[in-house]
Amino acid sequence: MDITSDTHSQHISRQFNQELEELKTHLMAMGGLVEQQIQEAVSALLDGDSRLAERVRDNDKAVNDMQLKIDDECTRVLARRQPAASDLRLVLAVIRATSDLERIGDEASKIARNALALIESSQNAKGMVEVRHISEHVRKMLRDALTAFARFDIELALEVVREDDSVDSEYASAMRSLMTFMMEDPRSISSVLSVMWILRALERIGDHADNLAEYVVYLVKGLDIRHVDPEKLDEAAIKRQD
Amino acid sequence: MDITSDTHSQHISRQFNQELEELKTHLMAMGGLVEQQIQEAVSALLDGDSRLAERVRDNDKAVNDMQLKIDDECTRVLARRQPAASDLRLVLAVIRATSDLERIGDEASKIARNALALIESSQNAKGMVEVRHISEHVRKMLRDALTAFARFDIELALEVVREDDSVDSEYASAMRSLMTFMMEDPRSISSVLSVMWILRALERIGDHADNLAEYVVYLVKGLDIRHVDPEKLDEAAIKRQD
Repeated sequence: MDITSDTHSQHISRQFNQELEELKTHLMAMGGLVEQQIQEAVSALLDGDSRLAERVRDNDKAVNDMQLKIDDECTRVLARRQPAASDLRLVLAVIRATSDLERIGDEASKIARNALALIESSQNAKGMVEVRHISEHVRKMLRDALTAFARFDIELALEVVREDDSVDSEYASAMRSLMTFMMEDPRSISSVLSVMWILRALERIGDHADNLAEYVVYLVKGLDIRHVDPEKLDEAAIKRQD
Repeated sequence: MDITSDTHSQHISRQFNQELEELKTHLMAMGGLVEQQIQEAVSALLDGDSRLAERVRDNDKAVNDMQLKIDDECTRVLARRQPAASDLRLVLAVIRATSDLERIGDEASKIARNALALIESSQNAKGMVEVRHISEHVRKMLRDALTAFARFDIELALEVVREDDSVDSEYASAMRSLMTFMMEDPRSISSVLSVMWILRALERIGDHADNLAEYVVYLVKGLDIRHVDPEKLDEAAIKRQD
């Protein structure tokens, strides 16, 4: 190979790497936006701020637009660069990740809509301690999953996968106490149901963060650990694998 | 190009087409399985058949395994064949579709778990007429979306997209009457909640069928109509586009 074509191919490969970096950057931006959506939806609820809740609900369009844009970039990269091996896995992981982030955006907007209903009913809503707690938990999971993605950090990704079980049990326990409360005070049924939908949305956000973490393992190790029971995950083996 | 290499490239392209056909066939098989899961979960509920409900719950693993297998085939096709244009869109549409089918499988298994809770409580559950009706509606949507995918049928796909709005309003009306019922008879709270989760799962299945139909439009026309308000879809323009 002569020097010119070598320089040329280096140029191509530099451009390609840059495109892959941009995919990751855009995914992180989308992740940042949906994390903010969750945070603001929950703040709107806890502070009774209906204007903020409306803003979150209306902002969902921006999340959707980001998904379309990033997916389109991924398709272009696949068509033009025909990536293989770990580059291909990165592009596929980004496509899967945008789908989960978009659904997290939907859940944030559901939280905002239920917050609006609760604010309008001006009832003293039960379960706010649980909502705050679980929302902080799943936001941390989401942040960690995104960091793990950006840094190709398997250890952190596996931590997120483990966390999801504890969110699920916090959720189940919160739902049980809300149901008891509903039975004791049937006048609260409508507002307690809104809180239940909010908790459900938060629990789903935890599931999506868990999915994101699984894509990191796929991305880095080429192992598909979706649908593997976290307790059966042989973490040592995953970390060893090359 | 000499005859030998021409024959060779025809051979390659025939093999490639066959691989793409197989992807579609496997996707249809997965779709058939999840449709059966929905149907059996609802039958188990309506007939109080706890053994059937347990089978549906346990069968979810088979759905998950199919997703992993098909996704793996897609990755291989991308890596080896480096498809472009409509072939690339087909592979990407299949990857997206397996994710929705897998989530439909999850929802069917949620229906089965709630059916088990209802059967055990042996309460006379309200809302069964609505469950039956909405389940038939979303199963039809799912079947039509899969047929549209198999035949690249845009008209049928757009019909599914339109149907989703009417499922959403049937769902909202069923939820309102269940809430009223709960308020009138607080002893029913626990069982009505189970029925509400079942309706919610059915409504989500409608959303996933809607997604599948949107992938068909992407697949055939290269247009991404996710997040477009169905009322604003210019169907004539979509059908004209080449």
